[in-house]
Amino acid sequence: MDWLDQVRWNADGLVPVIAQQVGTNDVLMLAWMNREALAATVARGEAVYWSRSRARLWHKGEASGHVQKVHELRLDCDGDVLLLRVDQLGGEPGVGAIACHTGRHSCFFRRHEDGAWHVVDPVLKDPELIYR
Amino acid sequence: MDWLDQVRWNADGLVPVIAQQVGTNDVLMLAWMNREALAATVARGEAVYWSRSRARLWHKGEASGHVQKVHELRLDCDGDVLLLRVDQLGGEPGVGAIACHTGRHSCFFRRHEDGAWHVVDPVLKDPELIYR
Repeated sequence: MDWLDQVRWNADGLVPVIAQQVGTNDVLMLAWMNREALAATVARGEAVYWSRSRARLWHKGEASGHVQKVHELRLDCDGDVLLLRVDQLGGEPGVGAIACHTGRHSCFFRRHEDGAWHVVDPVLKDPELIYR
Repeated sequence: MDWLDQVRWNADGLVPVIAQQVGTNDVLMLAWMNREALAATVARGEAVYWSRSRARLWHKGEASGHVQKVHELRLDCDGDVLLLRVDQLGGEPGVGAIACHTGRHSCFFRRHEDGAWHVVDPVLKDPELIYR
């Protein structure tokens, strides 16, 4: 059986993908792939997602330069979640790589505390300078 | 606005939750929560998911003892994914904690290589001994 057939795609033909930085093991983001995106990711060695909002393939970093180089791809016990271990490129020298479109290292920059969400991570680069 | 209302629940009233081990930053699993599960998780300080297969609340570790103690809860930029940083309990002394129902540390124990999925992580404890 083809390895792509072993993934349990959801009713929309998608699977959630956790992107994790190699080395630090930081969780950077969660995005989605369809079969074509997953095949493209493996073929290129760079993350290619399916953008649900734009309904098209999305080569991560195509606008920002913040490409994710693939180090390892893993499948979970149920076959319906992927873990993509990457090296996140981009960002300014010395400030760390930027995965989030808000200009932050990780998309998970809000922490729950005392019944509210608090922004706890800094913007490393103004998004207007990233997507110009 | 209530912090629970700031989560962008999907059409089924669910949100994907990445469970990550504090300290090592290992990604352990991905599961789902509804509003009630998320509120229960915060109230108890232990992970409570929504089991889609059993259609009920699932206090992780209720059968195995492999409870996840919550250290930190984060929300992503789009508000539709949670990152739950936990201390995974259970497992045998010296072999490491077990998050996966297969008896492994993490659910992501299959690695893509040469067009196939390969099991690369060991079973730490026989599941028949975990769920007896």
